[in-house]
Amino acid sequence: MKVSQSIYRSEEPFRLELGGVIDRLEIAYHTFGTLNARRDNVIWVCHALTANSDVADWWPHTVVEGGFLDPARYFVVCANIIGSCYGTTGPMSVCPSTGRPYYGDFPAVTMRDVARAHRLLASHLGIGRVRGLVGASVGGFQALEWAAQEPERFDAIVLLATAAKASPWAIAIDETQRMAIRADKTFGNPDPDAGAAGLAAARALGLLTYRGPEGYNLTQQDNHDAPCSLPGLPSTHRACTYQAHQGEKLVNRFNAYSYVTILDTFDTHDIGRDRGGVASALEAVASGGARILAIGLSTDLVFTPGEMRRLASMIPGCAYEEISSPLGHDGFLVEHGQLNSILVPFFRQEAAQSQTKS
Amino acid sequence: MKVSQSIYRSEEPFRLELGGVIDRLEIAYHTFGTLNARRDNVIWVCHALTANSDVADWWPHTVVEGGFLDPARYFVVCANIIGSCYGTTGPMSVCPSTGRPYYGDFPAVTMRDVARAHRLLASHLGIGRVRGLVGASVGGFQALEWAAQEPERFDAIVLLATAAKASPWAIAIDETQRMAIRADKTFGNPDPDAGAAGLAAARALGLLTYRGPEGYNLTQQDNHDAPCSLPGLPSTHRACTYQAHQGEKLVNRFNAYSYVTILDTFDTHDIGRDRGGVASALEAVASGGARILAIGLSTDLVFTPGEMRRLASMIPGCAYEEISSPLGHDGFLVEHGQLNSILVPFFRQEAAQSQTKS
Repeated sequence: MKVSQSIYRSEEPFRLELGGVIDRLEIAYHTFGTLNARRDNVIWVCHALTANSDVADWWPHTVVEGGFLDPARYFVVCANIIGSCYGTTGPMSVCPSTGRPYYGDFPAVTMRDVARAHRLLASHLGIGRVRGLVGASVGGFQALEWAAQEPERFDAIVLLATAAKASPWAIAIDETQRMAIRADKTFGNPDPDAGAAGLAAARALGLLTYRGPEGYNLTQQDNHDAPCSLPGLPSTHRACTYQAHQGEKLVNRFNAYSYVTILDTFDTHDIGRDRGGVASALEAVASGGARILAIGLSTDLVFTPGEMRRLASMIPGCAYEEISSPLGHDGFLVEHGQLNSILVPFFRQEAAQSQTKS
Repeated sequence: MKVSQSIYRSEEPFRLELGGVIDRLEIAYHTFGTLNARRDNVIWVCHALTANSDVADWWPHTVVEGGFLDPARYFVVCANIIGSCYGTTGPMSVCPSTGRPYYGDFPAVTMRDVARAHRLLASHLGIGRVRGLVGASVGGFQALEWAAQEPERFDAIVLLATAAKASPWAIAIDETQRMAIRADKTFGNPDPDAGAAGLAAARALGLLTYRGPEGYNLTQQDNHDAPCSLPGLPSTHRACTYQAHQGEKLVNRFNAYSYVTILDTFDTHDIGRDRGGVASALEAVASGGARILAIGLSTDLVFTPGEMRRLASMIPGCAYEEISSPLGHDGFLVEHGQLNSILVPFFRQEAAQSQTKS
């Protein structure tokens, strides 16, 4: 498999929607496979909250022969989002004007900025039309926002476990995570480890919402064979060590400043803003003739199947599929078998055919 | 309405299941109405996590004429649980051996200890048979545990949005709240305000699980008429101010030491421990001939309707009702109309009749 990992450095200052400027925006990205001569085999993947541009790493069994992101067939592109910490400019980057990392002074970034950064990279790569645009979770936010900005650019769009606008429920989850981080008084220190304990708690909360009751009760039952006859104090429960472990794992690969930045970006998501509301923005998304498929997860707590069905019903011509999974929102990472079954045939349909149909 | 608020002081040291001792246990309790001459009109209410013994305060429209806790008909008793901060001995109480508040040194308390404290108070009040035992949420933990200890004592038992054993999911929620509190490094200080910011985050997380997606999306939509054309930074979202407000409200009426203590107690709940497992403990609960009714809430995320139906199916003869509510677990506090419709007739059935039937 041909894999390339690069950083694109923008020449121009990148002006942010809320007024900030990133003087020398860098965008870290991966590509898998080869752009064909007709340049019509691009599938652009938008990653979720704390993921990175290495799709083959976080989405197993997709960027493989026979998977829906088969690199022998498609030129798969994924860019790390602004504010994250996997190579794209974020709070740990050195601010050119101060010579020190931004930390808490990183400017506010909206989902529209993230989509515009993808457009910048696509131009740099010489990509015009995009055969497939795929986003799950916050990746779907980016996909919808990009499609709202350039509805004519895409042959097919897949919206997986996502939303056209951050819901009060999702925003409340984000705010609670920020509260946990701010409760850690080290947050604010000019230090990559600032707020680490708060970040661990925030991530553990994230996991609750990603997995949900069925997910936890299926995978985190206590081991009754353990030779412990005393009733469990917290440390003895498997669910407790799991939460601590999940928090620690994120602390080891992320930082609290980046995390708060991308949560804030999450909360700005509303494709209807200044476009006459969500309904008319979704009509505009469909106006370019792309085939659009929405996919919900049966036990997703963050983007519930009911909301996914409503989203699909608001996009003219949008198809809807539902993946059955006990693992909640995390099902989008885990249920690759069902995903491949749905998406391999979906992307193989010829672009021309889809345009005839639309 | 005749209301009495008192504190019972135990003469004996109260020995805890995990080895600790509370030398002078005090139990704060409320009674509503009058114990009749036959002493057969007692309804004992077990309160939820952060509530108190004043049922009329936190469960509106129940302790009223025509409500299922009508004080003209019943002698309603509710006791504050050990470890809480509404009058019963807890971390803010002065430890007799040190002359200072326990704070973080309060001994570990199990749900079995809480049930035994209720039994102590019942003896003190001269209560033998109990006409009705009602517990919602953690109150249901207490009710089930007490019924497992003394199945013959109750004519009727109502288990509302609860469980026979703390699930991995519920324990993970608790652990995440503890992680948020511990992330606040002031937790551990000998101070009633220790861990306040962490406690606020923990409570905000609790609220997420109590209300769920439907609850938030129904009640916390942003006001689109607000003259704010800029995309919402966190502070502008109603869901954010709601979370902050809920955190602050608990900080003003509770403390982090008590909160962690009762979360720990929550996690010890398992009526099957040393009783041959949950199934045989539930058979024992039913063996005393009590009429037992389980009630689930249609959108409850903490104790899902599916789990409530399973609980009911495991208790011989147990009836099951489901309350329809968009407000998740909090529905048990809000849907008093449906509760009264179910519970007024349930409790009016004669005790004798129920015993004949069983």
